[in-house]
Parts: sequence; C-alpha cells; structure tokens
Amino acid sequence: MKTEFKAYDLLQKVRRESPVVHHLTNWVTIYDCAQIVKTLGASPVMAHAPEEVADMTRIAAALVLNIGTPTLDFVEAMKTAAASANQKGIPVILDVCGAGATDLRDRMVAGLLDAVKINIIKGNASEIARVSGADIRTKGVDAAEVGVDLEKLAQALALRRQATVVVTGKVDIVAGGQGIYRVKNGDALMTHVVGTGCMAASVIGSFAAVEPDYRKAAACALACYGIAAELAAEKSSGPASFKIALFDSLYNLDQLAVEKMQRIETRQDEAP
Amino acid sequence: MKTEFKAYDLLQKVRRESPVVHHLTNWVTIYDCAQIVKTLGASPVMAHAPEEVADMTRIAAALVLNIGTPTLDFVEAMKTAAASANQKGIPVILDVCGAGATDLRDRMVAGLLDAVKINIIKGNASEIARVSGADIRTKGVDAAEVGVDLEKLAQALALRRQATVVVTGKVDIVAGGQGIYRVKNGDALMTHVVGTGCMAASVIGSFAAVEPDYRKAAACALACYGIAAELAAEKSSGPASFKIALFDSLYNLDQLAVEKMQRIETRQDEAP
Amino acid sequence: MKTEFKAYDLLQKVRRESPVVHHLTNWVTIYDCAQIVKTLGASPVMAHAPEEVADMTRIAAALVLNIGTPTLDFVEAMKTAAASANQKGIPVILDVCGAGATDLRDRMVAGLLDAVKINIIKGNASEIARVSGADIRTKGVDAAEVGVDLEKLAQALALRRQATVVVTGKVDIVAGGQGIYRVKNGDALMTHVVGTGCMAASVIGSFAAVEPDYRKAAACALACYGIAAELAAEKSSGPASFKIALFDSLYNLDQLAVEKMQRIETRQDEAP
Repeated sequence: MKTEFKAYDLLQKVRRESPVVHHLTNWVTIYDCAQIVKTLGASPVMAHAPEEVADMTRIAAALVLNIGTPTLDFVEAMKTAAASANQKGIPVILDVCGAGATDLRDRMVAGLLDAVKINIIKGNASEIARVSGADIRTKGVDAAEVGVDLEKLAQALALRRQATVVVTGKVDIVAGGQGIYRVKNGDALMTHVVGTGCMAASVIGSFAAVEPDYRKAAACALACYGIAAELAAEKSSGPASFKIALFDSLYNLDQLAVEKMQRIETRQDEAP
Repeated sequence: MKTEFKAYDLLQKVRRESPVVHHLTNWVTIYDCAQIVKTLGASPVMAHAPEEVADMTRIAAALVLNIGTPTLDFVEAMKTAAASANQKGIPVILDVCGAGATDLRDRMVAGLLDAVKINIIKGNASEIARVSGADIRTKGVDAAEVGVDLEKLAQALALRRQATVVVTGKVDIVAGGQGIYRVKNGDALMTHVVGTGCMAASVIGSFAAVEPDYRKAAACALACYGIAAELAAEKSSGPASFKIALFDSLYNLDQLAVEKMQRIETRQDEAP
Repeated sequence: MKTEFKAYDLLQKVRRESPVVHHLTNWVTIYDCAQIVKTLGASPVMAHAPEEVADMTRIAAALVLNIGTPTLDFVEAMKTAAASANQKGIPVILDVCGAGATDLRDRMVAGLLDAVKINIIKGNASEIARVSGADIRTKGVDAAEVGVDLEKLAQALALRRQATVVVTGKVDIVAGGQGIYRVKNGDALMTHVVGTGCMAASVIGSFAAVEPDYRKAAACALACYGIAAELAAEKSSGPASFKIALFDSLYNLDQLAVEKMQRIETRQDEAP
C-alpha cells in the first residue's frame, strides 16, 4: 500500500533549516558523507577528538555514527558524542558498517547499543542479521544473501532496542514500533560504488534532524536518495560517473521528479 | 583599484618549480588538498607521524596546516612541523577550519599561533572573526554572516600576529602590513562543495612556496583558483560535476583566461 | 618478446571470484583504493585496529599495505595483519609509498620487510631504488629520474627479498626469480592524479588474490589498469575527468579491448 508521505516536503525542510549533522564516521567515505549532507543543503561537521565531540554534538541537530574503520578509542569517542546527543534529545543514527566481519566489530556494536540510546540502526542485510544475533559472517562489507525473513528480523531488533531499524538493499526496509515501510527507489549501480551505504546513513541523519518521526524520516530520506540514484543511472557510463551524477541529481532534485517517482509502501505489522 | 599583479606569472612559477608542499590537514579533504596541489603542477606530501614531520618539512617549500578534524596529538605534530618550517624559513599556512565551533578548537588555534610563527592565517568570515576574538559561534564549518567590518578585523589580526590574513568569501580579503587586497574571482557553487576552503589554503601554500611576498602570493593564488571555478561553473550541472571541472580547469588554465578574468583590487590601508 | 598471458582471463577470474582484499593503507587515497577494488568486481575491506586486523585478514584473499601516511602504531598493525596473511598463505603487497622521503619511512619499510614475508614490493623508480639501498632522496612521493639500471636493481631486490618487485613508470617493470616483464600500457595523465600508484597496488592485490604466480598477476593487473587508463585518456579534459573515466573504463573493460591493447613483454633474465 502506498504511503501518504510526501518525501519532497521533508527534503525541502532539510534545505530550508540546514541542520548541522555531526559525524563520527569511517576514514574511507568521510568525504562523501560530508558532501552528501552539504548536497542536501544541510551542514556537515566531522569531529572525533574525545575532548571535543560532546561540545560539537551540542551544536548539531543529528549525530551519525559509522563503525566502518573503528578503533577502541574511536568507539569511546562515539559513546561520548552519543551521550551528549541523548541528553540534548537529538537523533543518533548508527551505521553498523561491517558488522559480522570480526568479533571485535560485533562487540563494538553491542557495546554502543548497550551504552547509549541509538535511535536508528542501519545496515545491509547481513549486517542487520548479525546485529540481530543471527550467525552470519559478513564477506567484506558487502551485502550477502542471508536467507532469513529480513522484515521479521528487523522488526524484532527494532522492538528489542526500541529503535528504528533500516535495512538497505534492492528494497529498503524501515522497521519500527508501528510497522514497516518498504522503499523501492534506487539503482543497482549503487552496489558498485564504495560509500553509497554510508551516505544513506548521512541522508537519513539529515532528514531525522528535521522530522521527529524517525521511521518517516528514514523512508523519505531513502526515497529521495534512491530517486536521485535512478536519475543518475540514466546519465552514467560506469560507477564513477554515476557517483558524480548522484550528487548532482540530489542537489537538483525537484518536486515533480520526487512526486512522480517516490515508491514508499507501508505494511501494518502483525503483532510480534 | 586594480593591481599590477600578473597572477598567471606566479602560476607558471609554481608549474616550473614544482615545490613540495607538506600538509598536516584534516581527514575529510586530505585527498582534495593533495590533488589540487598536484593539479597546479606542485608536489604534495601528507605526513603526520610526530617522529617524521620535522624531517618531511625539511624537504618542503611550504607547510599547510588545517585544524578541520583535530586531536591533541595531531596539533602537537603540527607544532613540531611548524617549528621545523620556521627554522628553515619556509611559509606556514594555517587554515583555522571550524574555529569557533568548540572551545577546544579555539584553544588549539590560539595554542598554535602562540607556539610557532604562522605566516598566513586563513579562514572564512566567522572563523577569522572568532580567531580575532569576536564572540561568534560557528555553525558547522560554513561561513556565517558575522556583521562586523571584516577588513578592519582582518587587518587588526594581521598586525597583532604579524601575519598575512586571508578571509575567503564572495570577495576574498587578503590583509597584511601594507594594506588589503580584494579578490573578486570565484563562483557561488564553491560553497556547495566540501573542501573548497581547504583547497584554497593548499593553493595559497603552493604559491607562497615560490613567492616571498605572501600577500601577493595569496591574492594571485585565490585569483587563479577563483578563475578556474568560474570556468568550471559554466560546464557544471551540480556540485560534483563542478568539482571535477574545477580541477580540470585549473590544470588547463592559460594566460589568456587569467589575464582577462583576474580581479584583484587593492586598497591602501588607513593607519591602524 | 610478447608474453602468452591473457590479462583478460585473469580480470574475469577476479570478477567471478570477487576476492576480499584487505587494506591497511594511507589516509589520502583510502577511498580510491577501495573503489578501484570494487570497480574490478572484488570486495575491498579497510580495517586497521590492532585488535581486529588479524581476524580481518583471515577472511581476505590478499593483503595490501601502503606506508603513505604512516605512524609507528599503524606499522605495528601492518605487521600483525601481515603475520596473519603469512600464516594463511595469502599474498601480501607492500606499496613503499614515499620511501626515501624521511629516515623514519626507510626504517619502517626495512622493519616490515624484516619482520614479515612480503610477496610483492611495489613502488616508483626512486622508491624502489631507495628500498634497494641506493642513496636517493625522494622529492615528495613523485617518481624521480634515478639514473640507475632499474631492471637490474629490481631483480637484485627480488632475489634478496625472495619477492616479486614492481616498479611503476612509463614502462612498468615486474621482476622476480624467473625474469622480468615489462608492461607498456598506461597514460601520462596518471602522473597528474594523486593515488594512481596506490590504486595500482590495490589492482595488483586483487589479481594476486586469484593467481598464485605473482609475477603474472602483477603484469596482468598493470596491463588491465593501464589499458583502462589509455581508454580514459581519450575521453578526458584534465586529471579529474580522467580519473572518473579511468574507473568507468576499468568497470567496462571487455575482452576485445584488452586483447588488442595488452602490451606485456618478457625478458629472460641473465643469471644474477
């Protein structure tokens, strides 16, 4: 069933309010995370010094964490920043990038989820399956076929952690207390570009900064991002020109395109 | 009043001499800082190990520091590198990226300015206002309207710190002992691309490496960079294609374009 | 003399098997290293926490090390990862990026070569000359004319370290126990793009992950990479558009182009 959401309205709100989105992210895609936030019209800030993160979070409207290239110290700084965000009441998004690849990473994710309030947990199928406790080993940081009922798993994790859970993939899943959204925008070329997953978390963070219904924020964010990808794919001749076009398309995204192309569907969840 | 400067002559000198420009910069734009220096025909080197920075600075012709993603250790390495640069007599450029965002960052900037000789202090309006002691709070790392007489403020800072002070913006300001230059090249798309400010510091560093009059070096650097941006904007459909075109335009920048488009103006300063 | 190698067959093997290639690389080109691996159809992973690197290497089929922006801790993590790779029997590639720039870097390279088994040592002319013990000082990280018999030097280093030695340049040299390959693919624009050398190491790592004859793997990797560069150069108007086209060309590289353009030559080595 199609939702009533107007993703474009939320995009415009991001553009108008230009929220500061603080990141503690990985060193591979840090530039892209910053640039995608700026492309949306929001204001990225990246800071990770333990002595600074709490203060920086205080001037932000959302906090995005990503454990793609973690160290123990860095995860501690994430906890400090998240505690500051929790106190201020702004959303904290955790990209569980590479969960399942090593035991350390699994412990880091669990440690974060136990220590602070994470409002939105985001990963691909194998990562979210792993965080849910499924015995799955990630191959690198790419999505793997996991052969489980992802929506059920996401919903159970959402319930257990009292969070919105986002599973990116061919169809993105947004799970939470009241039910599930499926976002069917996007393009297969995204899987050939390093950082599209990380950027998705940054886009979600930017939308959650201006919309307190985090499920709605995540669904609208993924729709806009996916629509930009669809438009970009038409003009691309490979992954690198696609990435350039993705930024340009998102920057230029207009009401007509979003309203015509938006594919967010809803499903009322069975009682768990 | 137009200056007599020929920015193109200095660009050609950079291309001919290919100076090594050592950076201790932030982790977001480190690639772009290196690439813009190489695009100019100069030779970038990035190194931050405390045991190595002094030696690396010794083979360099300029040192560019940027506190965009600082840690305490990293700032100490900056001081070591800058002391080495001071001893060798090569220019040190400090990009006060994000000054005013947190107290830690303000203390870091002050600590650097007190500990070593900084030859060129560079930031946007709100950052330079903050470094000057104005009570302004940066929103992220973007320029804010600051409602002060920027030229006066820059000149006072230049006098106090015995440095060239660069304020980037719609009109770039280069302030120093003998007066002020205004550089009117550039394009609004630059504000939609993460790293254009950091790259400006790297371009200034490359020019200062071959020109001992740092005010002139900074003005010519900003003119060439801004002209490349103007040429790039004509071919762009958004921030990402603009950035690609900016690199290409700077690489291909020729005498005809620079001489025709250069907009550096001078103003003799009132006695302070 | 032309070799019998079919570089395309090996490229297809990479695409089919999609090996995980673990990197501990520098902070400047980390994104490009990951993206070039993904562009090949392989699966990049970047992880450097000392507590994690051994485990991460265990899920990988090759390990790529790069000392472009080293610290003492980081080099220790490299040793841990390499020991894990040695134990598993997967290839370890070391890009001696910036060797000769400082004494610390020279000591780091020697320390790595002494502590663990490096299967492929890769650098530009001045870097490899330096690692071979020649008294050459690197100017930044760019190749310098070194005025020595590079092939002889590479072969001697290969013998001493029982490794494959790759020297990138206008003609790439691949030296090892049985002789020398010369790879004549590539384009001069590569020298104007930061990271083309680092990416070469990542491409070699991806090929070595699926081909136990490392000399052959390196030669085929450099041929495919160089052919993509030649195709890209035709469509480029400067270093940035060239880099975009390089990724796209490599992604789209087909049998016809590789078979027609491949230029790998062999030379039976004189007894050393």
